[in-house]
Amino acid sequence: MAVSPRIAIDAMGGDIGPAVIIAGMARARRKDRSLRFELFGDEQIIGPELARHQPLIDAVAVHHTTDAIQASEKPSQAIRRAKSTSMGLAINAVKEGHADAALSGGNTGALMAMAKLALRTMPGIDRPALAALLPTLGTTDCVMLDLGANTECDAQNLVQFAVMGSAYARTVLGIAKPRVKLLNIGTEELKGTDELKEAAALLRDADYLPLKFEGFTEGDRLSRGDLDVIVTDGFSGNIALKTAEGTARFVTDLLRRAFTSSLRSKAGFALSRPALNLLKVHLDPNNHNGAVFLGLNGLVVKSHGGANAKGVANAIGVAASMVRNDITRKIGEDLDNFRAHAFNGEVAE
Amino acid sequence: MAVSPRIAIDAMGGDIGPAVIIAGMARARRKDRSLRFELFGDEQIIGPELARHQPLIDAVAVHHTTDAIQASEKPSQAIRRAKSTSMGLAINAVKEGHADAALSGGNTGALMAMAKLALRTMPGIDRPALAALLPTLGTTDCVMLDLGANTECDAQNLVQFAVMGSAYARTVLGIAKPRVKLLNIGTEELKGTDELKEAAALLRDADYLPLKFEGFTEGDRLSRGDLDVIVTDGFSGNIALKTAEGTARFVTDLLRRAFTSSLRSKAGFALSRPALNLLKVHLDPNNHNGAVFLGLNGLVVKSHGGANAKGVANAIGVAASMVRNDITRKIGEDLDNFRAHAFNGEVAE
Repeated sequence: MAVSPRIAIDAMGGDIGPAVIIAGMARARRKDRSLRFELFGDEQIIGPELARHQPLIDAVAVHHTTDAIQASEKPSQAIRRAKSTSMGLAINAVKEGHADAALSGGNTGALMAMAKLALRTMPGIDRPALAALLPTLGTTDCVMLDLGANTECDAQNLVQFAVMGSAYARTVLGIAKPRVKLLNIGTEELKGTDELKEAAALLRDADYLPLKFEGFTEGDRLSRGDLDVIVTDGFSGNIALKTAEGTARFVTDLLRRAFTSSLRSKAGFALSRPALNLLKVHLDPNNHNGAVFLGLNGLVVKSHGGANAKGVANAIGVAASMVRNDITRKIGEDLDNFRAHAFNGEVAE
Repeated sequence: MAVSPRIAIDAMGGDIGPAVIIAGMARARRKDRSLRFELFGDEQIIGPELARHQPLIDAVAVHHTTDAIQASEKPSQAIRRAKSTSMGLAINAVKEGHADAALSGGNTGALMAMAKLALRTMPGIDRPALAALLPTLGTTDCVMLDLGANTECDAQNLVQFAVMGSAYARTVLGIAKPRVKLLNIGTEELKGTDELKEAAALLRDADYLPLKFEGFTEGDRLSRGDLDVIVTDGFSGNIALKTAEGTARFVTDLLRRAFTSSLRSKAGFALSRPALNLLKVHLDPNNHNGAVFLGLNGLVVKSHGGANAKGVANAIGVAASMVRNDITRKIGEDLDNFRAHAFNGEVAE
């Protein structure tokens, strides 16, 4: 499908402000000239920043608002200002069909609540999930969900996440039958919570789905490259993702200390630098920025609040790829298929 | 206190077998000549291995049994063989006062179930927790618990873990008033499960305890060195610990690839090697081996099933340090103190 993705951008979300977001848009558009943007935020701030990126200007429609969601705001407060804030208006553009996806680097809880309210969950989905790609030792990344949208999940939620995550892996990573595992504290069948055991039983029986369910995995196997989709509740998923980020930084900090500890190791570092730069690229969270809310009737992408222009551009790329791959429709088809089998053809919903 | 710790060892636990365990005992005793061991397992296998470590022999009493707990065995099955297996007998030696601590590299669930049944939880503790030290960027390690003993925990469990973890940090790490945080998916007060919010409220009020409660922390802050005790339920704790292990290995695997990618980077590696070896030591899980079940009327240490002799020696060192620091008594005192305040002096038990 050859579309020109139109992305609605919340210019006011994120820790660093509109300058980084607009620089990220410019960067994304240099790579992909077909992108178009609906940009929501304070014209006074946006205007001068846009002026610094002349090639971008023709591709952007600016929608003025001075109201923005704060990082500390409760979701229940935020949703009251869905019609006036840059975040709410960006989501609304997707709802109204003016944009194919919305992107924000703001308050995750508020973004989730607003997106759910405006776009509603797809038939067969009880809760949307936040999904992202993890780097691995293998040739492709690995999809992980939920990363924090749902603190507690039942077995049905986890099965739905497996279906959505597999659709992500099929469409974006091009894996015909993704290998799916549930994150647990052991690989034996008797390990873990009742929800996990029940979800495993359901997935084991669902052999008509375009995925290969391979049981449980543990936290130390996430990056090995031998699975394509990791399914977990949002609490554990968030803990795992952040622990992985923190540990990668911890090891590279130790590495920096090691390299600067003597003249000799400094010389060694200078020699190894080109190779080590590849490692740096592989581990830079900006190269993995862009988590997607799956299970809504419309696409919403969360950019990390602290992302730089490269990170924002990467998240825009994720959004565009999702649009081009028509992921919402494909998840819908898989869900229809799942429900048709699971309820033996007697689907009401 | 100048004691000679007597450690009861399950020779048959672990993935590699008695040879590694006995080599670890020899290694531990070379460092600490006061150690004594009660060794439980198959004499036919143990005998020849012991013969290879002559200086160790005088410090070991061998207790013959051919029965051993299997890695895949359910805890409910395992406890029926508490009186005949090497694991059960090692724990029983602590109960009977023949040893100061028991150590096993076997099935964690079985070890936990047997230890709980034989030693019982301390007054004021509903569930024991598995605690270990994590490496950090700071000058001292950090205590983390629970690492997998309890899949689900309520607020009272978490508060008890905080008290026990602080006693660990005070006695073993020598930190007078340890900084304690609860692991969560955000640092704002409104984040996380009800159990976490309630535990935070209880700990915030418990200012008479010898600890400094500092609220919530996230997965990416565990290794920063700015906290001393991380409290979590066993599910999240296990996920976080294993994810950290896996990510550290992932980064070092990438590093190895980078260094071997060209002649130039190989030369750089050769130059930097002495400094990089320090990094290797810091990250080697064997140097952090030895997780302790806290909250029982007796000490039980879990060694990693895949630990090498250095790892086993390290776990024995943890056990000896716990014995010398009389940690069980100190946890008891803190718990008495907590209950006296929490129930306003009207403590029944």
